[in-house]
Amino acid sequence: MATIKEIAKLKPLPLKDISINDSFWNKYIKLVPEVIIPYQWDILNDRVEGAEPSYCISNFRIAAKEKEGEFHGAVFQDTDVAKWLEAVAYSLEWNPDKELEQLADEVIDLIGEAQDETGYLNTYFTIKKPQLRWTNLKEGHELYTAGHMIEAAVAYYKATGKDKFLKIMIRNADLICDVFGEDKNNKGYPGHQEIELALVKLYEVTGNKKYLDQAKAFIDRRGHKPNYFEVEEKRPEYERIFPEFDNYLPLYSQSHLPVREQKTAEGHAVRAVYMYSAMADLAYYYNDKELFEACIRLWDNITTKRMYITGAIGSSGILERFTTDYDLPNSSNYGETCASIGLALFGRRMMQITGDGKYMDVVEKALYNTVLAGIAMDGKSFFYVNPLEVWPDNCLPRTSMEHVKPVRQKWFGVACCPPNIARTLASLGEYIYAQSDNTLWVNLFVEGKAKVKLGDRYININTETRFPFDGKIKIHLQENDGMEFSLAVRIPGYVKMYSIRVDGVDIGKEGYEKGYQHIRISGQKEIEINFDLTPRFVRANPLVRADSGRVAVTKGPLVYCFEETDNGSNLSACFVDTKQPITEVYREDLLGGTTVLKVKGMKISQANWAPDELYKDTEVVWEQKELTAIPYCYWCNRTPGEMIVWIKEYTGS
Amino acid sequence: MATIKEIAKLKPLPLKDISINDSFWNKYIKLVPEVIIPYQWDILNDRVEGAEPSYCISNFRIAAKEKEGEFHGAVFQDTDVAKWLEAVAYSLEWNPDKELEQLADEVIDLIGEAQDETGYLNTYFTIKKPQLRWTNLKEGHELYTAGHMIEAAVAYYKATGKDKFLKIMIRNADLICDVFGEDKNNKGYPGHQEIELALVKLYEVTGNKKYLDQAKAFIDRRGHKPNYFEVEEKRPEYERIFPEFDNYLPLYSQSHLPVREQKTAEGHAVRAVYMYSAMADLAYYYNDKELFEACIRLWDNITTKRMYITGAIGSSGILERFTTDYDLPNSSNYGETCASIGLALFGRRMMQITGDGKYMDVVEKALYNTVLAGIAMDGKSFFYVNPLEVWPDNCLPRTSMEHVKPVRQKWFGVACCPPNIARTLASLGEYIYAQSDNTLWVNLFVEGKAKVKLGDRYININTETRFPFDGKIKIHLQENDGMEFSLAVRIPGYVKMYSIRVDGVDIGKEGYEKGYQHIRISGQKEIEINFDLTPRFVRANPLVRADSGRVAVTKGPLVYCFEETDNGSNLSACFVDTKQPITEVYREDLLGGTTVLKVKGMKISQANWAPDELYKDTEVVWEQKELTAIPYCYWCNRTPGEMIVWIKEYTGS
Repeated sequence: MATIKEIAKLKPLPLKDISINDSFWNKYIKLVPEVIIPYQWDILNDRVEGAEPSYCISNFRIAAKEKEGEFHGAVFQDTDVAKWLEAVAYSLEWNPDKELEQLADEVIDLIGEAQDETGYLNTYFTIKKPQLRWTNLKEGHELYTAGHMIEAAVAYYKATGKDKFLKIMIRNADLICDVFGEDKNNKGYPGHQEIELALVKLYEVTGNKKYLDQAKAFIDRRGHKPNYFEVEEKRPEYERIFPEFDNYLPLYSQSHLPVREQKTAEGHAVRAVYMYSAMADLAYYYNDKELFEACIRLWDNITTKRMYITGAIGSSGILERFTTDYDLPNSSNYGETCASIGLALFGRRMMQITGDGKYMDVVEKALYNTVLAGIAMDGKSFFYVNPLEVWPDNCLPRTSMEHVKPVRQKWFGVACCPPNIARTLASLGEYIYAQSDNTLWVNLFVEGKAKVKLGDRYININTETRFPFDGKIKIHLQENDGMEFSLAVRIPGYVKMYSIRVDGVDIGKEGYEKGYQHIRISGQKEIEINFDLTPRFVRANPLVRADSGRVAVTKGPLVYCFEETDNGSNLSACFVDTKQPITEVYREDLLGGTTVLKVKGMKISQANWAPDELYKDTEVVWEQKELTAIPYCYWCNRTPGEMIVWIKEYTGS
Repeated sequence: MATIKEIAKLKPLPLKDISINDSFWNKYIKLVPEVIIPYQWDILNDRVEGAEPSYCISNFRIAAKEKEGEFHGAVFQDTDVAKWLEAVAYSLEWNPDKELEQLADEVIDLIGEAQDETGYLNTYFTIKKPQLRWTNLKEGHELYTAGHMIEAAVAYYKATGKDKFLKIMIRNADLICDVFGEDKNNKGYPGHQEIELALVKLYEVTGNKKYLDQAKAFIDRRGHKPNYFEVEEKRPEYERIFPEFDNYLPLYSQSHLPVREQKTAEGHAVRAVYMYSAMADLAYYYNDKELFEACIRLWDNITTKRMYITGAIGSSGILERFTTDYDLPNSSNYGETCASIGLALFGRRMMQITGDGKYMDVVEKALYNTVLAGIAMDGKSFFYVNPLEVWPDNCLPRTSMEHVKPVRQKWFGVACCPPNIARTLASLGEYIYAQSDNTLWVNLFVEGKAKVKLGDRYININTETRFPFDGKIKIHLQENDGMEFSLAVRIPGYVKMYSIRVDGVDIGKEGYEKGYQHIRISGQKEIEINFDLTPRFVRANPLVRADSGRVAVTKGPLVYCFEETDNGSNLSACFVDTKQPITEVYREDLLGGTTVLKVKGMKISQANWAPDELYKDTEVVWEQKELTAIPYCYWCNRTPGEMIVWIKEYTGS
């Protein structure tokens, strides 16, 4: 087991130093400035016909006393503005846009006006329930909302160097420390975690340790008896917000046990992974072995027992929550896009404090599969729920399957996932590279250029690749002073064979450690990496009842799926013959360019069944069937229909 | 297609003329007088420790002004008393019990006291909302409750000849006709159907056609535009009862279309089949071809597209409803016990008016599988939801699987299924035999004796059989006047080979028509029937996505299942080799005596999986596995655990 503080925490490179120009990712990241940010701006201003009004900017104007009116939307409505600003910040770093920056400045001015003299900032409570501040942490989402605002402010400061928003949020954070500090009476903690990781970011950018201490206090208090939320709701000033929170399970918000005693990932998946991300941060900064071990335990529980092959988490549609080990139903799961984003945040932090590539394997899985599936290739519609098997006919409203949508939905009034995808795509660079004292880390394989400052030297890195459809990655490194440094290249867990040549010389496995090959570099070097990305049939642990007798088809980090539009209907009756090879075909014309995979198999025939026969003792009649799979992330970008990831395996001969 | 009025409606024999003494059924029907009726009486009086109070008798006492207090329970709480009395009535017919009869008389006296001078009878509205009578038919369940009361009154009159209860309910029915008659202003109809079939019964016992007309009016009005429930809820006096009925779908209560235009079984399954039962009755009495065709269409839709092999219906846990053709998920379904009881009621009526045995095939399937599974063999716990596959670990509260209970539950405060099972078991005789002008019909094969009056003659029938574990049925018939009559013996659809000998002479298929062999009889005859009940592997139409690649094991009407206690855990990893024979073993010691079925197969091994491996590209390692199946109706009567009906098929060689 990696122990903490062995290495300095790896840092991402500033996004402004990274230029991505990648055949796989361009399709998505270009959507951020071109489609998503302008579209979401219209949403925030209630200017999109046919979409539910968001009221976000209106709420801020009312809170800022620029106009009169009532608050509309959910208690956490402000977070849509926060996530928009955060995405704008990241986008401005690598795609400067004066007009957009000016717009953001105006929004920040408005936010400043909506803040009161104490530093309090939350349009719901300010407009609607000023007397009920901090009285319903379980449902009120005040700390959650503050967290997203702080994240946005930190991102905007880093992107633009302007500190107005940061100062606003420092005032807000100071108020929070005043109310909830360790030496204060209020020992509350948020009903939806998020502020904790945000306070760590605020510490990182300000150096003020009280924010870190406050984050730690929130984490350390959580789950102790008596449960804060149970105490809180007995107070006279308590007012219920969500009727569906009746019979609240503390487990839902991971407050069933002190976090250090938690052994399994429980409750609402997004809440869980946001909290675990902060726990990883705090374990590092406080060199807190116990907290670190809890992180490892929870990470292992998720990734070895409760995670879909696509990096989705949250098996239950009701309460969007984790359930039990190996319970991974394919068609009725939740698998929220935001939860996979949170899992990537958690995994990135675990990698940053351990230098272990196994965490990036999961981060990459979540990004390349569930997060990208969350957004249509035109950037205009979104999956919140990410099933691995869909039969559109049974996804009926007012049934147990109503949470599953067989096609992506437009931006909703309450929209967590779309802006979360936007800020994730806009900050992709933070996932690609990292740096430590004397090492440049390459975590993801994405074509483009970057410069990195190691000590007082600048290194230029230029990557050429068609990953993940091709396993060849060429890296050109240039450091002009001739001083030695390390390049750490991630060797993904799914790569069984690879070679690395440095200036033409195969270096074997020299320097391999914990999922990275550490290569000593000086001056200018050409590195040629060849990963074997031969497509494979993957099976699940037989204890995953939903997948037994089934296989998934993968290529590198990509999970593939079979769609009705390529394979006809009733994919449940299709069986793949895994003794036959998988054929790869790169299709320039399809889905913006993609490798499709073809497999041979059989399908159960309807030939011996009359339409009015439901059950009978007949033999199975098989028909030959060639099946075509596309990357899961691209599903439902053509004619909607059935889709399946875990396809049955034909065991006959 | 059978046309209506070809035959006179078949009538059941009076229960008092039937004596059941059957090795299969005794286990269950004896529970009715010995366990269920006394236990439910204690429940109705809130005397069972640990069970939710029912308040039923208390509510009646308050309504009768015998005591003061508040109403407690659901709006339809009275129906528990009704179903108890109905079960008592049937039970008294074949198991006279003076003490019980006196208790029932006292309850009936109390009911009489709770009725007001207008004939109105409903403790919820009388105690709690007297001014809101008939103002919320959608949710108020007043007509539903009246229906159950009428059914009980008719049963009690038939059983005892006492007419007090009948007269009470006639007064109530007269009031209903006064309020809702065709010549009145109120064109309402019930939010939960039940009164319609009850009014038909009241007509049958009184001969008063106005009850039949009222039933027809309720059926004919239903689903016309504007929708009554949408009109009703706009009235000033409307008061909501169930918050979960927000955004009500008319489809939920089959009021989305006029019933004659309904082509598919939609909405809440119990409501649907209770309504279809009344439609069949009315189609017969009014010789209404259009209504009859609607019945056939709806029956066919259910039985050829939307019914589980166990006779369960209702695929969605949310709203306990039908979903779409071929959508039959095995582990997340509802499949309410009451819905299968209703399906049996519908099917029996269709058989009674057509003389077609195919309807009894479904009735038998529902009774022998889902209805019996609904009750534990000790009569003390019950399944409301009847899954075909259970993994107890994932049936967690506050998840999408929370409606599925891996073990039977004690009687609930709101308990529709337990008393419904009780009245069904107590009236089993009505399913076994029927009579028409000159024919005695044998529908189910149950050991025991009966006498039947055909015209002015009495025929004695004595059946000996160990059905369904054995296909041999000996029927001794005795008619002393030597006049000719017909015996119609049902030949079940699952019987592929059979022989019938009359006094030792094989009669071949002579007299076979629509699922019955009609045998001319005079004097005394020995009939020996031999059905081939060899166990079989049954498959589902490949369009049933949940079952493709799977088989069910059946023997006669019994569907079998595999339990963890016999086969170990992870039944999802078990595959049956259908090329190997099924072995039958009768086990006297097991579950009160049952045939178990043994099959050979394979199981996916855990041997090549470490506990921390969730996905990998490994081969499947198979281990040999012998599997033991027991009748589905007996599941969860031993150590609770996993259970599966549709088991995967091993296609390897």
